[in-house]
Amino acid sequence: MGMIGITMGDAAGIGAEVIVGAWSAIVNEFGNCAVIFGHPEILRRAVRLLGVGFEVVEVCGIDDCSVISGNRIPCLCCVDDSVLQVLPASVDKRAGEAVFRSITVAIDAALSGKIDAIVTAPIHKESLNLAGYCYPGHTEIFAQRCGTNDFAMMLYLPAGNGICSKDGIAVVHVTLHTAMRNIFDQITVESVFSRIRLVDNFMFGLTNRRPVIGVCSLNPHAGENGLFGNEEATVICPAIKKAREVGINVCNVAPADTIMIDARDGKYNAVVAMFHDQGHIALKLLGMHRAVNITLGLPIIRTSVAHGTAFDKAWKGAVETGSMLEAFRTAKRLAENKTKRSQ
Amino acid sequence: MGMIGITMGDAAGIGAEVIVGAWSAIVNEFGNCAVIFGHPEILRRAVRLLGVGFEVVEVCGIDDCSVISGNRIPCLCCVDDSVLQVLPASVDKRAGEAVFRSITVAIDAALSGKIDAIVTAPIHKESLNLAGYCYPGHTEIFAQRCGTNDFAMMLYLPAGNGICSKDGIAVVHVTLHTAMRNIFDQITVESVFSRIRLVDNFMFGLTNRRPVIGVCSLNPHAGENGLFGNEEATVICPAIKKAREVGINVCNVAPADTIMIDARDGKYNAVVAMFHDQGHIALKLLGMHRAVNITLGLPIIRTSVAHGTAFDKAWKGAVETGSMLEAFRTAKRLAENKTKRSQ
Repeated sequence: MGMIGITMGDAAGIGAEVIVGAWSAIVNEFGNCAVIFGHPEILRRAVRLLGVGFEVVEVCGIDDCSVISGNRIPCLCCVDDSVLQVLPASVDKRAGEAVFRSITVAIDAALSGKIDAIVTAPIHKESLNLAGYCYPGHTEIFAQRCGTNDFAMMLYLPAGNGICSKDGIAVVHVTLHTAMRNIFDQITVESVFSRIRLVDNFMFGLTNRRPVIGVCSLNPHAGENGLFGNEEATVICPAIKKAREVGINVCNVAPADTIMIDARDGKYNAVVAMFHDQGHIALKLLGMHRAVNITLGLPIIRTSVAHGTAFDKAWKGAVETGSMLEAFRTAKRLAENKTKRSQ
Repeated sequence: MGMIGITMGDAAGIGAEVIVGAWSAIVNEFGNCAVIFGHPEILRRAVRLLGVGFEVVEVCGIDDCSVISGNRIPCLCCVDDSVLQVLPASVDKRAGEAVFRSITVAIDAALSGKIDAIVTAPIHKESLNLAGYCYPGHTEIFAQRCGTNDFAMMLYLPAGNGICSKDGIAVVHVTLHTAMRNIFDQITVESVFSRIRLVDNFMFGLTNRRPVIGVCSLNPHAGENGLFGNEEATVICPAIKKAREVGINVCNVAPADTIMIDARDGKYNAVVAMFHDQGHIALKLLGMHRAVNITLGLPIIRTSVAHGTAFDKAWKGAVETGSMLEAFRTAKRLAENKTKRSQ
């Protein structure tokens, strides 16, 4: 049975609570197929805080996990004991060091085929940077360690709760964490085409079907025939044409406010957004607590919760675990489909 | 009793159907206090199409309407019979001419105090332009005829259907129908402050209470401390400071995706969005069929349906009338509060 690795996230945040809180649901649905990369003692604190009857078992390797059963959480300890000194809700380089170690050990395990996918709990960028690892976030650590240049962060909202598409909605952004003034240079025929192709591959990997893809306009009313800008004609339409030429099922460019309604109502199951707010406003309103963050373009499968470390809620025993459960489900589904296709 | 004027909108669109369709609800709720500016024969066609038992009565002046009662719709005929030749769902300068005439007659009636407010049905910009009236839309016709420079288009979503604020949510945009490349020059301390003040005035006019106002950042994550742009620090925060100095209850700038969730959940009842998609994506997902379009900064009260002429649905007898009813309710409430304050 293929194992899925879960990285613990920043010890000061809600990562350990989210993992322990979602554990019952994960085991009930998938059996014993998860292993945590982190420090077992941090997980034990979460077990005590949540008052659940799990035993955290330190394992020496992935192979050891296969004998784990019942109410036991296997944890591969890959970080230093100094992480145990980290206080809740604090920025701490020891937490950043532990985060980087657990992520890279998990990536190496995935690259060598010991685990089938990685699900990540949230990290704190400042702690990571304090430890000397200057990455904007998880995604870039994964991309660099996997040697990938053509990658993208994607958000995925599963079906149900008002999402009509039975395959859910995948939303990928052409530009993301950048000043609005700088998005124009980044929105090119190549970058839009790349995102269309990445989201098409993702949805095929998840569902074994090609998705129907909607592409948001950059300008209001899709530029109203050039009256409010012309990037629709000069950049987005050529990218759509290029995608159709390679057989991708992509609809005409349309205003983002229309696309998001139509996606909710089932017309599209994948959306390419031009900038951060187009995707995030819609996804948050449609149910961010169930959203999954996925890195596209990697040679390995990586999903993540869509929320942050939530220091305001950390170590109080009252966290929402829906995103972790959906992230695990998505990773498992991607991994199973990948295995089937390679057989 | 104060009368509310309703302009018929483009004869080729869904205006007449929406008015006739909402008529029962309007009369039940407010009695006979509405008069239509348009052509009675167009309304009669809608009455026949919808199979409702109303009689459309042509009136010579607003004073005549006060004797109307029961199932009778008073219509002030202020347009030429040529509008009767307009085919459904067609761009036609005769429709544009009728639109311009009925709007300007209604504006003059409002300016002279004969009616207390105007509710507009949708118009078609191309037909208007063909008739020789080169305005982007309703809003600019109103602004020009009223001699107003400091005006803004606002969207208002009433309470209920998941909107927790009992006063609903008002969303005003700093920039709207413009290319994204051009928004930066239009987002100034003055323009942001102007929108904060306009939406504060509007909500006070509607509810007799000062609203709690959220101001969206331009950049993702509110610029993440300058990492993704600095307009939050250089433009938006100074505008917020200026608004606070005149006693307006405005919160710190926050990311648009967070603001829209918090507005839905009741933290804000007014939002200033920096550009089209920030407001429209949220409002469409939260219930555009109930949304009301309002022009702020006019000396008269004008509300409108938030939808267009919907040529694809026009004259088929199956239109959604929720937006017209909410537009009428909002106009009536604004008018009653204005009257009370002036007493």
